[in-house]
Amino acid sequence: MAYDLYWISGSPHAWRVMLAMEIKGQEYVSHRLDPSKGEHKTPEFLAMNPRGKVPVLKHGDTVIYESTAILVYLESTHPTPALFGASAQETAHIWQRIAELENYAREPLYGVTRPLYRGLANEHADAIKLCAQDSHIEFLQVEDMLSGSDYLAGNAVSAADVVYMPVVQGFLRAVNREDAASLELGFQNFDALYPKTAAWLERMEALPGYEKAYPPHWRE
Amino acid sequence: MAYDLYWISGSPHAWRVMLAMEIKGQEYVSHRLDPSKGEHKTPEFLAMNPRGKVPVLKHGDTVIYESTAILVYLESTHPTPALFGASAQETAHIWQRIAELENYAREPLYGVTRPLYRGLANEHADAIKLCAQDSHIEFLQVEDMLSGSDYLAGNAVSAADVVYMPVVQGFLRAVNREDAASLELGFQNFDALYPKTAAWLERMEALPGYEKAYPPHWRE
Repeated sequence: MAYDLYWISGSPHAWRVMLAMEIKGQEYVSHRLDPSKGEHKTPEFLAMNPRGKVPVLKHGDTVIYESTAILVYLESTHPTPALFGASAQETAHIWQRIAELENYAREPLYGVTRPLYRGLANEHADAIKLCAQDSHIEFLQVEDMLSGSDYLAGNAVSAADVVYMPVVQGFLRAVNREDAASLELGFQNFDALYPKTAAWLERMEALPGYEKAYPPHWRE
Repeated sequence: MAYDLYWISGSPHAWRVMLAMEIKGQEYVSHRLDPSKGEHKTPEFLAMNPRGKVPVLKHGDTVIYESTAILVYLESTHPTPALFGASAQETAHIWQRIAELENYAREPLYGVTRPLYRGLANEHADAIKLCAQDSHIEFLQVEDMLSGSDYLAGNAVSAADVVYMPVVQGFLRAVNREDAASLELGFQNFDALYPKTAAWLERMEALPGYEKAYPPHWRE
């Protein structure tokens, strides 16, 4: 039974699922949607996800949206390599990290990323700077998570890494835009400020399948 | 091996875990913290959760924070009754609902609840009204989730219900405060506006253990 994956290039949430499918070696039928044509708001797509967001996974009669729920489904249907651990402790620890990233880190990072991608560096400068300060705090938390382990929830790649990596990559791409330079957000020397996070990103980039799941329009 | 649960009365996230433990019939050593005395910011507590938040569950050498991660752990150590479903489809559907509630509903609801509990109804009136509008939209989404099923992710109580119920109860308690009346947030006739949600709340209130997990200071 084929997997159909609906995604938009650059969506961090779609990227999570694409990377997980590469790690698990699970092929899928790719449906890249063009948001500029509203392809994620058609009646057909809204019938799958009333919120009109990617990713959506279709597998036979099963339709799932929300990236973390799709990761859970893939763990059931394609258990190896495991992304949610092998023991009660490991699984809970991975979910704790996911919750921390989603509940604390994501919003400040998106508070920087979103207006920058929309070309609103000047209009929203004050709000971006505030969110950048909170982002620094969360990057320090991640440095702590990576002290003593190669990945966010231990020494093997897990769903926590898959959840967070695309958010960080989108953030770094945003703060390195030319129009962000004048805001002085303090991320120019990212690798020196956050060496464990930089080394973790290198490990993530070396994963088999990383290149295949990379947002294609970022190469253009 | 005993479970030690650290909680604060009225914390919706602690309430989730307490209700899950009641549903699963799992006893625990209760550690109610007094936030007015900073008992969630002591060195001992911060050693368990550096973010200084409840709930925290301690089970032997295992320490877990973040309510959803604790629910996952309890599902492993005390599998029945199941709160995360019995099939790949059910489990993914429950996580999809949790993600929807956490990612879309929680922030607007907290945007109403938090300033009201802090007595800032007048100072934050405009922001509260905006969040109330978004909350109405999310309550309509929940009505849809409950069309054709008794609970948020099917006809059995699941972790999705346990996650959302305390957030809704805290919200309703806030909007029914006297100082919220003048804001005209539109929740006076909640049961008529959102009948499926009101009936679902009644089902949740009838669960064994509901009374035991209810925030004690709300009765005072």
